[in-house]
Amino acid sequence: MGKKLTTRAEDYSKWYNELVIKADLAENSGVRGCMVIKPYGFAIWEKMQAGLDKMFKDTGHQNAYFPLFIPKSYFSKEASHVEGFAKECAVVTHYRLKNAEDGKGIVVDEEAKLEEELIIRPTSETIIWDTYRRWIQSYRDLPLLLNQWANVVRWEMRTRLFLRTAEFLWQEGHTAHATEPEAIKEAEMIMNLYADFAENHMAVPVIKGTKTASERFAGAIETYCIEALMQDGKALQSGTSHFLGQNFAKAFDVKFATKEGKQEYVWATSWGVSTRLMGALIMTHSDDNGLVLPPKLAPIQVVIVPIYKGLDQLEAITEKVLPIVESLRSRGISVKYDNRDTHKPGFKFNEYELKGVPIRLAIGQRDLENGTLEIARRDTLEKSSIPMDEVIGTVETLLKDIQESIFNKAKAHQQANITTVDSYEEFKKVLEEKGGFLAAHWDGTVATEERIKNETKATIRCIPIDVKEEAGQCMVTGKASPYRVLFAKAY
Amino acid sequence: MGKKLTTRAEDYSKWYNELVIKADLAENSGVRGCMVIKPYGFAIWEKMQAGLDKMFKDTGHQNAYFPLFIPKSYFSKEASHVEGFAKECAVVTHYRLKNAEDGKGIVVDEEAKLEEELIIRPTSETIIWDTYRRWIQSYRDLPLLLNQWANVVRWEMRTRLFLRTAEFLWQEGHTAHATEPEAIKEAEMIMNLYADFAENHMAVPVIKGTKTASERFAGAIETYCIEALMQDGKALQSGTSHFLGQNFAKAFDVKFATKEGKQEYVWATSWGVSTRLMGALIMTHSDDNGLVLPPKLAPIQVVIVPIYKGLDQLEAITEKVLPIVESLRSRGISVKYDNRDTHKPGFKFNEYELKGVPIRLAIGQRDLENGTLEIARRDTLEKSSIPMDEVIGTVETLLKDIQESIFNKAKAHQQANITTVDSYEEFKKVLEEKGGFLAAHWDGTVATEERIKNETKATIRCIPIDVKEEAGQCMVTGKASPYRVLFAKAY
Repeated sequence: MGKKLTTRAEDYSKWYNELVIKADLAENSGVRGCMVIKPYGFAIWEKMQAGLDKMFKDTGHQNAYFPLFIPKSYFSKEASHVEGFAKECAVVTHYRLKNAEDGKGIVVDEEAKLEEELIIRPTSETIIWDTYRRWIQSYRDLPLLLNQWANVVRWEMRTRLFLRTAEFLWQEGHTAHATEPEAIKEAEMIMNLYADFAENHMAVPVIKGTKTASERFAGAIETYCIEALMQDGKALQSGTSHFLGQNFAKAFDVKFATKEGKQEYVWATSWGVSTRLMGALIMTHSDDNGLVLPPKLAPIQVVIVPIYKGLDQLEAITEKVLPIVESLRSRGISVKYDNRDTHKPGFKFNEYELKGVPIRLAIGQRDLENGTLEIARRDTLEKSSIPMDEVIGTVETLLKDIQESIFNKAKAHQQANITTVDSYEEFKKVLEEKGGFLAAHWDGTVATEERIKNETKATIRCIPIDVKEEAGQCMVTGKASPYRVLFAKAY
Repeated sequence: MGKKLTTRAEDYSKWYNELVIKADLAENSGVRGCMVIKPYGFAIWEKMQAGLDKMFKDTGHQNAYFPLFIPKSYFSKEASHVEGFAKECAVVTHYRLKNAEDGKGIVVDEEAKLEEELIIRPTSETIIWDTYRRWIQSYRDLPLLLNQWANVVRWEMRTRLFLRTAEFLWQEGHTAHATEPEAIKEAEMIMNLYADFAENHMAVPVIKGTKTASERFAGAIETYCIEALMQDGKALQSGTSHFLGQNFAKAFDVKFATKEGKQEYVWATSWGVSTRLMGALIMTHSDDNGLVLPPKLAPIQVVIVPIYKGLDQLEAITEKVLPIVESLRSRGISVKYDNRDTHKPGFKFNEYELKGVPIRLAIGQRDLENGTLEIARRDTLEKSSIPMDEVIGTVETLLKDIQESIFNKAKAHQQANITTVDSYEEFKKVLEEKGGFLAAHWDGTVATEERIKNETKATIRCIPIDVKEEAGQCMVTGKASPYRVLFAKAY
């Protein structure tokens, strides 16, 4: 493993790309825009999935699975949805290959052309609402609270590992409700659930808010979001939850009989987070030495490295280490004892630093004599020597401490990078020199939003949920504005 | 819910299709050949996944994720693989849609044609071995023991829910080894792991064996399999594990440096089970009243139904029930207390019978007075009254008992339906009148195998692992045969 990473100061973007590769998280495949998620990266994603899945189930949701393919005509049914999604997608047109007539390789069999093309799902509202029509007849069938874990495809021209790939993994929730307030409550609850997960599992502080009309999901009445801030001052949309009104129910004719026997259209939400969260996780905490992982998501929470000369010393160390491993595991802590004799301790130290293992324990001959061991925390790189018989308690405390510390550090960074600006000049200056979120007045029009985006590349990330009423003037047009919205350049 | 199922005796195939629908397991979608797995069906599949995933990890495997798309040219690289898989597949030819010029809907944008078509993976050997070439340099990189949970697509003309669908969910393991014996050991270990899972989680007895050359996986040197027997006497291949030799390593040029510094091709295995297992599970245990589920895979292991008149009685019952629910849950038993007031007890009884909930508890006014409750087991439909303070122990014992009983019942059925036959006449007669596995002598040639298949629809399911040497004559040609192989009609 070539050790040195490009530093963040040198080239943040290059640092990220190198880190993803060198920490064995993912790599580009031979298929344009599609990544391979490597075992170490996938183990982190599995921990995210497990955490989220439990939260979904605890709030009454069930998992199901809907088809990968969506008939082309389904997209045309919801007018704004087709504009947003039907354009950049993978289209299946044939269902057979055959040997080429010239004997060289295989070719598409033109006789096996589909009557109607199938789209690889970019999101599943259409196929799911086509199904819900059969499942929902009465108020007794509601609410319907489903989620699926799936792969989706959006044909992106410029891709980056985890942040933007043609195929990605995600979960998509699709719920159906009898009333508008209930659906809105669901969409808001999920936004809060996502924020809870981001902050308490990923240690990534987020701002909760709603999107402006032009940034809304295609087909939504309201899009709720959580926005994280990366170390380079750019925002990263980390999860969205949509109140869809009756748009999809009307497009797919999904009605239910109320208690009173009236026929009404069903109210809907949809919501999702994806492997993009991996990008947020990596960029929020990591440093020039490599990955920094929150203990709750680290596949290996503690690594133990023996420092020895000769097999006798290794055996003596191993004898001390095994009970520690067992004791930590019995407390639900994942531990790796790396006794490989093919690599030196220094190499191992670098590897686990690069891979963001939260705690490293090292034990050498002198430790054996003194009844001590060395404990090092990945986030601050601090090391200290502790009595061996205190190791379990120390590790447990330190794992909690690291989880909190990296959140607090990221939170301080976020807070220090929300700047209130009052003029367009100041806006452009701060955006250029400091970045981060800019709290500014805006006149509420798409035209002004577009102009700002074209001139500065900043977009309105959200109208924060806890926004304060504050009469002001749009920084661009001077028109009246009731509150500040948050701008940023974004991933 | 329309209650009555077609009986197995009336029409086994119709019984199966109705059961899958009525028990809310899955249904056909609007996309030809693709199913929707409903929440109840998916909950069973999740339990299967969890059980298998733990077994894979306990034997040293890690999960990863590889792309959905495979460039067409990859298929051509392994000659026998392309014959087996490249024909019936979904082909992506374009990456964009556009509004139709006549304003009616959307059409494929002919300008967005891919230079090379992409195949939706029917299995991932090719894309994975293309990746392994980059990952494997030295003996230190071996063994590589990976698995992925994924959706795959094989364009089937005749589909049936779970048993044969165009898209299905599965896991596919892909391992790389330094030596031939190690790879063979892996393939055999996985066959044993699958059999262990089938028998001890699904309660489905299986026969372990190897496939004949013509039934082998396209690209394999040896295919190991587990074969289950359904109640109608047809076999169902439930899992396969392939020793691939160096075929894929050669096709994708994957070499490693041995300890001695020589360059050698890597040895491979691949193995998979799919949502087809759901079909095996359903057909092995269920009866004319509906699903019968093994407790280990039942989403709801115990359902409690109150039988009451008026809210006072319901409250009194609920007061007794809640501690039981809590106590069972604390023992890891999944319990549903169905206190819905929209449905009568009789309706609920039918519903849980149909859905195969292993144990049903019912409590009425007289039970309250007597300190008893009624316990009913789904497999035998036996009911009895037990003292309420014995319920926890009784449920625990009964869950174990049901798990064992349904396995023993299926095992007895399997054993009773392996018939040794010595002539082709007898073979045809038994196949027609009784079905099941037929142990017969075969001359080892593809020609005879083909002839038997064409004349009787029976195929060689496997050469059992524990086959006894027994010199004999092929029942068709009279040529020498060293042991009996197992024939059956199969799903």
